[in-house]
Amino acid sequence: MVISSLENQRVKSLVKLQQKKYRDLENAYLVEGEHLVEEAIKASVVLEIILLEGEQEINDFPCTFVTNDVMKKITSLESTTKVVAICKKQEFSSITGNKILLLDEVQDPGNLGTIIRSSVAFGIEMILLSENTVDLYNPKVLRSAQGMHFHIPVLSVNSIEALTYLKEKGYTIFGTNVVNGVDARELDHSSLNKFCLVMGNEGKGIRQSVCELCDKNLYIPMSEKVESLNVGVACSILLYELGR
Amino acid sequence: MVISSLENQRVKSLVKLQQKKYRDLENAYLVEGEHLVEEAIKASVVLEIILLEGEQEINDFPCTFVTNDVMKKITSLESTTKVVAICKKQEFSSITGNKILLLDEVQDPGNLGTIIRSSVAFGIEMILLSENTVDLYNPKVLRSAQGMHFHIPVLSVNSIEALTYLKEKGYTIFGTNVVNGVDARELDHSSLNKFCLVMGNEGKGIRQSVCELCDKNLYIPMSEKVESLNVGVACSILLYELGR
Repeated sequence: MVISSLENQRVKSLVKLQQKKYRDLENAYLVEGEHLVEEAIKASVVLEIILLEGEQEINDFPCTFVTNDVMKKITSLESTTKVVAICKKQEFSSITGNKILLLDEVQDPGNLGTIIRSSVAFGIEMILLSENTVDLYNPKVLRSAQGMHFHIPVLSVNSIEALTYLKEKGYTIFGTNVVNGVDARELDHSSLNKFCLVMGNEGKGIRQSVCELCDKNLYIPMSEKVESLNVGVACSILLYELGR
Repeated sequence: MVISSLENQRVKSLVKLQQKKYRDLENAYLVEGEHLVEEAIKASVVLEIILLEGEQEINDFPCTFVTNDVMKKITSLESTTKVVAICKKQEFSSITGNKILLLDEVQDPGNLGTIIRSSVAFGIEMILLSENTVDLYNPKVLRSAQGMHFHIPVLSVNSIEALTYLKEKGYTIFGTNVVNGVDARELDHSSLNKFCLVMGNEGKGIRQSVCELCDKNLYIPMSEKVESLNVGVACSILLYELGR
């Protein structure tokens, strides 16, 4: 059977997963396209697969076939997607690992996706997202992360509570305010056993209340013509340096 | 006088500047928002200013006032823009500088903008764009570059011709294919007097014919879980290393 009606209840519930509210309610999200679906299967998070009519069924998963119009309605990509997987969210309840990244109100989905890729690349062990950071399960974040979110635990936190906890546990907290900063190239690497790097909002940087919990600020030396780097770039360069 | 009709010929010609074809024909482009317009004025490239009705005229420039609806039609931003400047393109006709970046078929406007910011930050002296690279004057590129395109010459080239010329002139050409690459952290900095770094397309990397003109490939050491970094991030890390 192929679902062809945009009014179908199943279709309507899938479309709702484009909104964070419903992803939270259902504890599920969609990944789009062959590459991401393959990665989701490897990560054992696939609940169900939606295929374009005429595509081959994927073994071991409940499969639903839909028409081109229905697929377009469900997905966020402009080009036609052949396969979509409904995935269960991976739940983490506590902070683990020695190398941690906290994103404080990062807004752009492409930036979060890029940062997830770089975090896995450079050995970060957990990513913490503050309240007003873009949702991990936003389709644009997932596309830009290229499946790398399956390889790193991500936890939503209150920044102040998380940093207070980490300080108690002996982590060094690195902020990225340029005032009184330490040149990232001149870091004492023997002090990097347990750290948390904090990156702030694209326009406003790190909130003052969060700044106050940072032990040191890191800066990347650059031309005076440039006010700031893209946050994904700045974060990636610092992770690259911290992992050196 | 305030232009309120979407059918006005002036409005229609401004809307056309959203397309590369007309930007090329008119040798002009739009920058949107107060910050970018200020930067454009400093860079002495402003031909004319379009303001939302009720805004204050800007001295020394021909100003045209438009209604909210007209402004929305002209601009690419979702939020309301108060000011837009028509700017003349800056023309460069030859390759200058010792530190050059060549982008070979980079497609994403956000990536190009980010790379422009990083290039200025890390002392690149000229950016070369291959035929199928996204247009510098695409509004999304300009937004993401945050006015930094005013601080660096950008030239459209044929990659093969440009690299052949640079090789003749004694530049070292760095590619970014991972095969047989040199760890970016272990570069001999005494060899970096004259170089050109080549970055390729988001999905496909550097074209084979372009690869063949590279003297050395650079790679960024990273976890095996990650196939590649975002091209803006990879480029920025390499520029950071090359400028060390």
